[in-house]
Amino acid sequence: MKKLILVTNDDGYLAPGVRRLIEWLEPFGEVIAVCPDGPRSAQSMALTVSTAMRITRVDDYKRDGSVLYKCNGTPVDCVKLAMHTVLPRIPDLVVSGINHGSNAAVNVLYSGTMGAVFEGTVFGIPSVGFSLTSHSMDADFLPCRPFIESIVKKVIEKGLPEGVCLNVNIPKDCIPSGMRVVRAARGKWSDEYQEYTDPFGNPFYWLCGRFINEEPEAVDTDEYCLAHGIVSIVPEVVDRTHSDVDAISSLLSL
Amino acid sequence: MKKLILVTNDDGYLAPGVRRLIEWLEPFGEVIAVCPDGPRSAQSMALTVSTAMRITRVDDYKRDGSVLYKCNGTPVDCVKLAMHTVLPRIPDLVVSGINHGSNAAVNVLYSGTMGAVFEGTVFGIPSVGFSLTSHSMDADFLPCRPFIESIVKKVIEKGLPEGVCLNVNIPKDCIPSGMRVVRAARGKWSDEYQEYTDPFGNPFYWLCGRFINEEPEAVDTDEYCLAHGIVSIVPEVVDRTHSDVDAISSLLSL
Repeated sequence: MKKLILVTNDDGYLAPGVRRLIEWLEPFGEVIAVCPDGPRSAQSMALTVSTAMRITRVDDYKRDGSVLYKCNGTPVDCVKLAMHTVLPRIPDLVVSGINHGSNAAVNVLYSGTMGAVFEGTVFGIPSVGFSLTSHSMDADFLPCRPFIESIVKKVIEKGLPEGVCLNVNIPKDCIPSGMRVVRAARGKWSDEYQEYTDPFGNPFYWLCGRFINEEPEAVDTDEYCLAHGIVSIVPEVVDRTHSDVDAISSLLSL
Repeated sequence: MKKLILVTNDDGYLAPGVRRLIEWLEPFGEVIAVCPDGPRSAQSMALTVSTAMRITRVDDYKRDGSVLYKCNGTPVDCVKLAMHTVLPRIPDLVVSGINHGSNAAVNVLYSGTMGAVFEGTVFGIPSVGFSLTSHSMDADFLPCRPFIESIVKKVIEKGLPEGVCLNVNIPKDCIPSGMRVVRAARGKWSDEYQEYTDPFGNPFYWLCGRFINEEPEAVDTDEYCLAHGIVSIVPEVVDRTHSDVDAISSLLSL
């Protein structure tokens, strides 16, 4: 039987990144895409709990074998609602992206692209997120294609360990120098707000900031790879329980 | 110097749970609370990226030593904005809650309460989330108090390992039978949507569902504790990188 692939993203159904992804996944199976009806960046694993949810087919999107739906929720809502409504069976693969912007290091925590990937993993489905480290809507996604094809082929063939998904970041000035499986770099955002004063003299703030890599020399990290033109693949777990429960028990004298 | 404690939640600044939490934390230090201006349940680690952010003091909230602010963002926005604006220095502790409802097992992924706790951990601050397994606004939070005091005292005294935070769930019919440090139970949500038809004949959906614990007999899990009147403490990590990067590298033939 043909593989069934659920595609989603967080930049919305009109984003060039997801359009390319759908096209490039078609040789691997039947593609059903369910994407937010507008940008939902930085939605993490947020769920819509207090609004009616709708999912509607994008009628003017005509491709041979692929269908596209839009949904008024977050990326996680898209996955949940797809599973509940338009998918004929549990898909063999969930693929999210191609995100317009990096989801490396700590950014994975806030990423809507990766939120959908974690949700696919909760459902027990092998799930992969792809991001290109450029926010430009005119970004050239073509260099991503061989990396996506190679990773998707392997994951369809071999699956992924239970509870593990992949966070793939592709550097925008990507030279075809390969890819590496690495860990997330330690780092944090700094100078996170721009301050303004409204016409009535009241302050307001807008989120911005710059990411500081706290270990730029660490070769086994995603940020190192991206800084050196190498595609980074970080295997991520859904279960965040700390490996040493006993140590915390002692610390709390329990 | 007096300890500085940042308090937040996801049910909003009017929720009884956070009001009790502020009061009970006052003996441990100076409390500054920055809460969403309305309910922000299931916001995970979502960030507000395309709206002006405001933070304003709740003037009619008068307590000796504690101040309360409201913010138009998510729980993570509250933590970020608090750090940037109203906190005089990096706090010694971030405490989120008391949530109205369980954040055990897979629910930690979607939880706004725990989103704020993970954000505190990204900042390198010992951070703890408290949840009571009742959604009622009339829930009795008082039985939570000794557990909160005991955990906060220990965490202030000993800190937490870097990158590790605590997800504390308190059963609503809590007998004082102690607390345990455990792992998150494996499980998933089922029957996640109620279906409706609008007056024009179009379908819409509302998120609901029931949680299925896939390992109800496992005594070392949070769900087991809660089912037996025991407070569960799950230590959670911020860095989700899978422990065996090499295994994934082999799987992908890299």
